[in-house]
Amino acid sequence: MSVRVAVAGASGYAGGELLRLLLAHPGVEIGALTGNSNAGQRLGSLQPHLAPLAERVLEATTADVLAGHDVVFLALPHGQSAAVAQQLGPDVLVVDMGADHRLTDAGDWERFYGSPHAGTWPYGLPELPGGRAALEGSKRIAVPGCYPTAVSLALVPAYTAGLAEAEAVIVAASGTSGAGKAAKPHLLGSEVMGSMSPYGVGGTHRHTPEMIQNLSAAAGERVSVSFTPTLAPMSRGILATCTARAVPGVTAESVRAAYQKAFADEPFVRLLPEGQWPATASVHGSNAVQIQVAYDEAAGRIIAISAIDNLTKGTAGGAVQSMNIALGLDETTGLTTIGVAP
Amino acid sequence: MSVRVAVAGASGYAGGELLRLLLAHPGVEIGALTGNSNAGQRLGSLQPHLAPLAERVLEATTADVLAGHDVVFLALPHGQSAAVAQQLGPDVLVVDMGADHRLTDAGDWERFYGSPHAGTWPYGLPELPGGRAALEGSKRIAVPGCYPTAVSLALVPAYTAGLAEAEAVIVAASGTSGAGKAAKPHLLGSEVMGSMSPYGVGGTHRHTPEMIQNLSAAAGERVSVSFTPTLAPMSRGILATCTARAVPGVTAESVRAAYQKAFADEPFVRLLPEGQWPATASVHGSNAVQIQVAYDEAAGRIIAISAIDNLTKGTAGGAVQSMNIALGLDETTGLTTIGVAP
Amino acid sequence: MSVRVAVAGASGYAGGELLRLLLAHPGVEIGALTGNSNAGQRLGSLQPHLAPLAERVLEATTADVLAGHDVVFLALPHGQSAAVAQQLGPDVLVVDMGADHRLTDAGDWERFYGSPHAGTWPYGLPELPGGRAALEGSKRIAVPGCYPTAVSLALVPAYTAGLAEAEAVIVAASGTSGAGKAAKPHLLGSEVMGSMSPYGVGGTHRHTPEMIQNLSAAAGERVSVSFTPTLAPMSRGILATCTARAVPGVTAESVRAAYQKAFADEPFVRLLPEGQWPATASVHGSNAVQIQVAYDEAAGRIIAISAIDNLTKGTAGGAVQSMNIALGLDETTGLTTIGVAP
Amino acid sequence: MSVRVAVAGASGYAGGELLRLLLAHPGVEIGALTGNSNAGQRLGSLQPHLAPLAERVLEATTADVLAGHDVVFLALPHGQSAAVAQQLGPDVLVVDMGADHRLTDAGDWERFYGSPHAGTWPYGLPELPGGRAALEGSKRIAVPGCYPTAVSLALVPAYTAGLAEAEAVIVAASGTSGAGKAAKPHLLGSEVMGSMSPYGVGGTHRHTPEMIQNLSAAAGERVSVSFTPTLAPMSRGILATCTARAVPGVTAESVRAAYQKAFADEPFVRLLPEGQWPATASVHGSNAVQIQVAYDEAAGRIIAISAIDNLTKGTAGGAVQSMNIALGLDETTGLTTIGVAP
Repeated sequence: MSVRVAVAGASGYAGGELLRLLLAHPGVEIGALTGNSNAGQRLGSLQPHLAPLAERVLEATTADVLAGHDVVFLALPHGQSAAVAQQLGPDVLVVDMGADHRLTDAGDWERFYGSPHAGTWPYGLPELPGGRAALEGSKRIAVPGCYPTAVSLALVPAYTAGLAEAEAVIVAASGTSGAGKAAKPHLLGSEVMGSMSPYGVGGTHRHTPEMIQNLSAAAGERVSVSFTPTLAPMSRGILATCTARAVPGVTAESVRAAYQKAFADEPFVRLLPEGQWPATASVHGSNAVQIQVAYDEAAGRIIAISAIDNLTKGTAGGAVQSMNIALGLDETTGLTTIGVAP
Repeated sequence: MSVRVAVAGASGYAGGELLRLLLAHPGVEIGALTGNSNAGQRLGSLQPHLAPLAERVLEATTADVLAGHDVVFLALPHGQSAAVAQQLGPDVLVVDMGADHRLTDAGDWERFYGSPHAGTWPYGLPELPGGRAALEGSKRIAVPGCYPTAVSLALVPAYTAGLAEAEAVIVAASGTSGAGKAAKPHLLGSEVMGSMSPYGVGGTHRHTPEMIQNLSAAAGERVSVSFTPTLAPMSRGILATCTARAVPGVTAESVRAAYQKAFADEPFVRLLPEGQWPATASVHGSNAVQIQVAYDEAAGRIIAISAIDNLTKGTAGGAVQSMNIALGLDETTGLTTIGVAP
Repeated sequence: MSVRVAVAGASGYAGGELLRLLLAHPGVEIGALTGNSNAGQRLGSLQPHLAPLAERVLEATTADVLAGHDVVFLALPHGQSAAVAQQLGPDVLVVDMGADHRLTDAGDWERFYGSPHAGTWPYGLPELPGGRAALEGSKRIAVPGCYPTAVSLALVPAYTAGLAEAEAVIVAASGTSGAGKAAKPHLLGSEVMGSMSPYGVGGTHRHTPEMIQNLSAAAGERVSVSFTPTLAPMSRGILATCTARAVPGVTAESVRAAYQKAFADEPFVRLLPEGQWPATASVHGSNAVQIQVAYDEAAGRIIAISAIDNLTKGTAGGAVQSMNIALGLDETTGLTTIGVAP
Repeated sequence: MSVRVAVAGASGYAGGELLRLLLAHPGVEIGALTGNSNAGQRLGSLQPHLAPLAERVLEATTADVLAGHDVVFLALPHGQSAAVAQQLGPDVLVVDMGADHRLTDAGDWERFYGSPHAGTWPYGLPELPGGRAALEGSKRIAVPGCYPTAVSLALVPAYTAGLAEAEAVIVAASGTSGAGKAAKPHLLGSEVMGSMSPYGVGGTHRHTPEMIQNLSAAAGERVSVSFTPTLAPMSRGILATCTARAVPGVTAESVRAAYQKAFADEPFVRLLPEGQWPATASVHGSNAVQIQVAYDEAAGRIIAISAIDNLTKGTAGGAVQSMNIALGLDETTGLTTIGVAP
């Protein structure tokens, strides 16, 4: 048997990546594909890499079109998911790839998004403590942001093991696909090739409260986060350099042991051998997470670095992984740990 | 049942790409992996994107190591395949990803490679007229060069249909992985990023006689080829711009009809809708070929443009496709037409 | 004494590059800077690399604003230059970096641009036969297109020397800045990085008639041109691969001799030593032209390859070079042959 | 009058960039150019972007060859400068672009470089407090490392003004030219394009003690530094994200005021207007430094971000700037604040 899946927002980067993965998923059948400004267009002209779907035509994003599917993925601008989900009813698995249902604190939501909070859904990061249990059988899934995925996987083991003080400093580099497909001058190839630049500096990036939420849950106390995202001259990938002051008594061995324990049974997260460091190219197009950790004794800090593909594990792959768990399928179905490199 | 496969030259780009594809191939079991200078090293340190094989250790490239497999892929420097193949015996399927057995004319080989010709093997480009028949049941396969793959698929239909004069002018851009993994100053990232440059100009590139061989076979007469390869600032992909003077009476319609007919039943080659042009990003990591063709009436020339991934359809994907045919498997097993984009 | 210069269209790539060069020009004083949608904005927010002009504010593009300058550069969309020039009067040196006044044949203009022809101005490519004489003392200059600059310099010597038949096949790769600063989805960094793609295939690119015009003038007969432009994953640079069938009796020596003669006294064009090939990185940010030529005896074709910076020699540098000649200054004033590499 | 300059190590990236700048310097005459493995080769084949020097031939790096110049620049592997300098005598201005004479603490040197300390020379970062005075009339200059240049300029104002606690966390992204021109597999274009990766994590990078030295001098106490360098897919540029915990009472206004004061009279350092952030493309090929600073009240940290060209202000431009001061020339001679963008 296969589940029937609809994708709302099939013309963007998140929607395109999701379709790339669903086409390789043995347990799903791809149903309705919708867009807004692009409704009526052939997918082949919008997503020329998805050859098997080239002749499919995008429909409008309406409840009627999305009805009659077992699973509906929402790759919509934030603020639009709640209304659509309500119309789909409680028996449909709705996977929100947008931000609407990630935060547990309504005040955080309103502060960073300036609109009423739509509520909180089970959080699609199975690798978190209790993460899988929260997703099993769920009919609603909030897919994490790409930065919080990379950052949480890198630092949660340190907080869970009580190795780090509640103050993290994080600098992450992202490929330009993280900024989406809407044409903006600063995202032109001419502007980004050969250039690195920061944005959302000083705690203003909307992914900041989500990181604080995840790290604080692991630490058992509120973790303050200094987060600086930067735009890198590549299409995909996030490299997150995450540091936190070590508590007294930490050693390189105790840090490494904590990370080995945390990821020993994880199918997608790999703690690299000592001396080898993550590279975004190694996880390009895959759901894999490469992690390495070091303890800088002189500076008294733990440095945990993760590499993910922002569109795969950071968005669409994480969504499929969570869907698999919610549906009771093998968590790895349709996903790979093999990157496309060089 | 699954066939047992060995890969000689597993540390390079061609070998790495082959392993990436074989890991997704349901009908094969990966056996011995060999390297020369890299023998004894963990594959995880050489091919960090191949997570499932990270702990595999490279062995030396010897007949003993390669013996006892159903299929042996040779990703070796040219000149080394014949000797290895001989030791493996006639019952093992040997797939040569090197140049040794591609050319039918010993004189061409000696002129371009400066060594004795090792002989000619069935040619692994199933899309050529008679291409599949030549591979069925064969125990030896010569995988085409990456440029000849892109160029032959773009121009053979014009010659087969008798639309073009026997004089082609071809300019192709290749990603740097086509130049291999050996560290050379002109291939450093600092040198290639932001730069386009030609090489092997004036008919000196070793893939030239292979193109002439394929185009001449289709034309039924010797086709002269002016071929200029260029190095582009990207890791993968070939964009081949192929032009030939049209014979009298050609029209845009007759050209398009010929290409539609040529590729109607091809699983990997797609003639794009009119007005849409190939892009290497659309076939990144896939075995797909995107082709578009135009007739420039003012210049009197047919312009056929193809995009492939040089490592996939241009090397390892073409090798797997041909292996599938030789073994009697479905030709598309373990291969995809879906690119990793953006 | 220094000439007072105004720039209409200072917010785009051509205008920005022109200002970069004018800031280093000892003989000019930068006056009015205008934009349309950007009027009223600080240049520092639009062209952050032009630090000395950061506090300058763009004015509207009107005759009043542009009046009272010795030289006015027009970096405007095609179709707008003639009207502005008329209002400026005959004593102002007007340098049109747009397409309006390049073509001598009104029919060509109307066919490719679909509007009435504005007339022909002296052509700003001093390296053409008679090129300098046409510019000396002129009050109107039509700056060549970037592709015609690269292509004409590569092939004119062959035609002037009578070495080539009247049929050229040209494939050129351009950096994305050639497509301008207007935000379009296919020009997003996510789309162009790691990808090569053609456009304007089949003789439809608007620079085609300009190439035919220049090559035909050199050949003394109409030269047919098959031109295919491609978009390369880099911000700047054009690599033009230009081939033409050789006339009987041509030798490698006669070809090289013709090119040595053609460029012996050119300050910006350099025929590279045998065995060395052009690279766009080598001319990045400079007014230099690197050229190499080969004779492919087997194919019977001359292959001439040129590398320029599309924004410098291809646009703004060529404009300054021509202005220098028109004003009677040393042709090289404010320009360099030194590229910014790696 | 012009000073006669020799360059030892003219075939590498630092040497090439230095020559690019010296060619535009009105006060210098370029004398001997030396290399080691490259001695005897034409510079045109090694540095094809330096057209005016194409015919110059590299000599061996010996005292005889370097003798008889007013200024000798050493772009040599660390450990080689002291011996050469000694042979040149005390009256020649020796500018060491290597690491040998940057550190004041011999123990730091031995710990990070594993060889005896060669001694400390005046430090070529004029923007530091007292920086210019230390260089005036000096006959020896130690050019700072590229990372310490970017980091010190970003954080010294905060420490000088007493706004930050003595604990900095720094993550910097560098273009690949910072790794030099020696061909290494991990620096191949195929490896670096589309990839971000860290290296020298955990305080092991040799530039770490130099940063600590500069920041501690400004703070008046030892500053602990957590430094993580990352390799970015671009040829040039460093983006340094530098954070430090703010002392009590700090406000966004007090932070901005301190930075405005620090750079008010600096010819090359520009504090960007509020809301605008540095980009490496904006300083490409220039000696400019773009800086922006923010105070993250929630995290209690100051975030100062700087962008430089690692080869220009980070190496060769800083060397020329310091030479100008040592020789009593205008500090900005031969240097520009104008980047080559896009």
